[in-house]
Amino acid sequence: MSRVLIIGAGGVSSVVVKKCAMLPQYFSEIYLASRTVSKCEKLQQEAGKDRVKEVFAVDADNVPELVALINKVKPALVINVALPYQDLTIMDACLETGVHYLDTANYEPKEVAKFEYSWQWAYQDKFKQAGLMALLGSGFDPGVTNVFTAYAAKHYFDEIHYLDIVDCNGGDHGQAFATNFNPEINIREITQRGRFWENGEWKETDPISVREDLDYHGIGKRASYLLFHEELESLVKHFPTLKRARFWMTFGDAYLTHLRVLEGIGMTSIEPVEFQGQQIVPLEFLKAVLPDPGSLAEGYTGQTCIGTYITGVKDGQEKTIFIWNNCEHAICHEEVGAQAVSYTTGVPAMIGASLMLDGNWMQPGVWNMEQFDPDPFMERLNQYGLPWQVIECDSPFSK
Amino acid sequence: MSRVLIIGAGGVSSVVVKKCAMLPQYFSEIYLASRTVSKCEKLQQEAGKDRVKEVFAVDADNVPELVALINKVKPALVINVALPYQDLTIMDACLETGVHYLDTANYEPKEVAKFEYSWQWAYQDKFKQAGLMALLGSGFDPGVTNVFTAYAAKHYFDEIHYLDIVDCNGGDHGQAFATNFNPEINIREITQRGRFWENGEWKETDPISVREDLDYHGIGKRASYLLFHEELESLVKHFPTLKRARFWMTFGDAYLTHLRVLEGIGMTSIEPVEFQGQQIVPLEFLKAVLPDPGSLAEGYTGQTCIGTYITGVKDGQEKTIFIWNNCEHAICHEEVGAQAVSYTTGVPAMIGASLMLDGNWMQPGVWNMEQFDPDPFMERLNQYGLPWQVIECDSPFSK
Repeated sequence: MSRVLIIGAGGVSSVVVKKCAMLPQYFSEIYLASRTVSKCEKLQQEAGKDRVKEVFAVDADNVPELVALINKVKPALVINVALPYQDLTIMDACLETGVHYLDTANYEPKEVAKFEYSWQWAYQDKFKQAGLMALLGSGFDPGVTNVFTAYAAKHYFDEIHYLDIVDCNGGDHGQAFATNFNPEINIREITQRGRFWENGEWKETDPISVREDLDYHGIGKRASYLLFHEELESLVKHFPTLKRARFWMTFGDAYLTHLRVLEGIGMTSIEPVEFQGQQIVPLEFLKAVLPDPGSLAEGYTGQTCIGTYITGVKDGQEKTIFIWNNCEHAICHEEVGAQAVSYTTGVPAMIGASLMLDGNWMQPGVWNMEQFDPDPFMERLNQYGLPWQVIECDSPFSK
Repeated sequence: MSRVLIIGAGGVSSVVVKKCAMLPQYFSEIYLASRTVSKCEKLQQEAGKDRVKEVFAVDADNVPELVALINKVKPALVINVALPYQDLTIMDACLETGVHYLDTANYEPKEVAKFEYSWQWAYQDKFKQAGLMALLGSGFDPGVTNVFTAYAAKHYFDEIHYLDIVDCNGGDHGQAFATNFNPEINIREITQRGRFWENGEWKETDPISVREDLDYHGIGKRASYLLFHEELESLVKHFPTLKRARFWMTFGDAYLTHLRVLEGIGMTSIEPVEFQGQQIVPLEFLKAVLPDPGSLAEGYTGQTCIGTYITGVKDGQEKTIFIWNNCEHAICHEEVGAQAVSYTTGVPAMIGASLMLDGNWMQPGVWNMEQFDPDPFMERLNQYGLPWQVIECDSPFSK
């Protein structure tokens, strides 16, 4: 039995639903639920009613409602592509109903931007004792970047020392300003202070203050800025030989100008302001004004390039490799009506789910992606739309 | 009897209240009302309870409520420094109760940015028949700039041909972005298409697309942009010899970047967006996030320079004059706790009111400022805080 319940009906969900629908060998039946049932119905229409059996409205903040839904559907696995604020309520509901769990982004409390795994790692014993598995962060970054690191450590090095994850969206959506995934989460991530791991401790930087101009395969040179990104926390824990681990993302000048203006006037704040007698969070209102990331797919040109530079030692020799994927916005749109940022997150969610359901990665407890054998995951990336490449190269970074 | 009722309790109102309070010879008793009574109480406290007799809460959109308030207070004159959306309801209430009316900005319907006098000019017969007077636009621009033009026409020219009103705020409030008066009205004014009068017709320009670098007395050279401003409409009507009439305002690059970003993403739009089940106007929410213009006064350095270049003919000779006022933010703050943009609007409102109440300008009907003898107004500008200067000069503009 490989019935899945997918919770969430945004841009990433649309990719997960459609990719799962294409693969009945892993996913015999698909059920879909989100706050707005009309979005689920649209996805059901697009993926086919024979594959998406039934859709439901659910408030994913509400555990009893989730429990009732899960008990009704009786899936083997819940794929959570709702908001990161809702990870814990969905995990609680999975525990209560005896169902496995997978997500693509770590739990975030709504009031503070944290990006840390502490809350979800605290579920380790509960999931183990229940004989249930929770797979955390099965998107691209986190997700594929963790698997790339595990793959490099397994096949290319005796010890890995330097890790630089690089994320470039070389696409053009033609909008004045838009975020490629949930604007609320995206802006929280970018406006926080930068952080990286070096010599056994976390070091902080001002937001968007450390820049490297990096050359991206298929795209060219792009200004890349040091950010904290959640996979750094688990990678540093699981690869204790790492001397340094960093994450870089590209932003154009126009994007940064928009961000600075919006931040400077307080529009990216998560502190509520008084408006016509109500408390409204500016960042949430901003999200309502900005384009829906799902709407960017049509006419989106160019491609993404996301990968990891890893420097380490093999047989006493230091070397560097780069493992990466290029993903074209237009090809994603043609295949599943999505842009590449949704696609690169949704496909790994489907692959992680397939590896849980077919037993390859099934193990009770709460796990990050790098804790499993990377080989079957790497194979399915090539099979299901995210082919990767690896080269030995000089590191573009100084030590 | 020279009892006045002031409606509105924002930055401009605070100047009007305090200046009226200083001049019992014109204003024997002051009453104050606004939507938020606590703002009125604060102003009453600051101006003195012996001068501001009583304060009231009133919804200025509601004619019966206004009528009841006016009947209770029985003022000779209502000074309207509420929102421009409320001009017509307050005029209606004045007509119903037999009370004179003054405002500082033309009526604006909420749904469209128009900046035109048609709605208020349509009250001409009603006010005349009722033996009541309505004085429109008694601020600085409109207001003083109209009087400057009338003064030039009266004393310096046989015929005026070219009019350029220039408005420079050379001050620094130390905020990332703030508007100096109601952000909603300010941004509506700036983001509309430019418009000017030339050879008998209105000509349009893209917003903020026509620039001149002008030298402002006491400030220096500043980039100045062609805007439509409401006094152009009445000045062109009342001075039919004008071959061209334009309005220019200075904006710094940072201000324009902020404006472009906010406009580009739709935050300055007056079209409501759906947010958590409600319809919210982005521009109104933006106003809630931006600093209250009244809060800018403390620590605001520098000065404003607003004036009119007028070119015309006297005794067969062409010449140009510049009439202007410089106003220091810090001096305004010291005198009445306001910044210069509020001060330069509030003082002319008080002067216009004083000229109505002492009979100098009293005449039934609906009038713009340039339709009266400018001399007593010009005299009171010098007496009450807005001294002006006039010079003959070369025009900085080409024909």
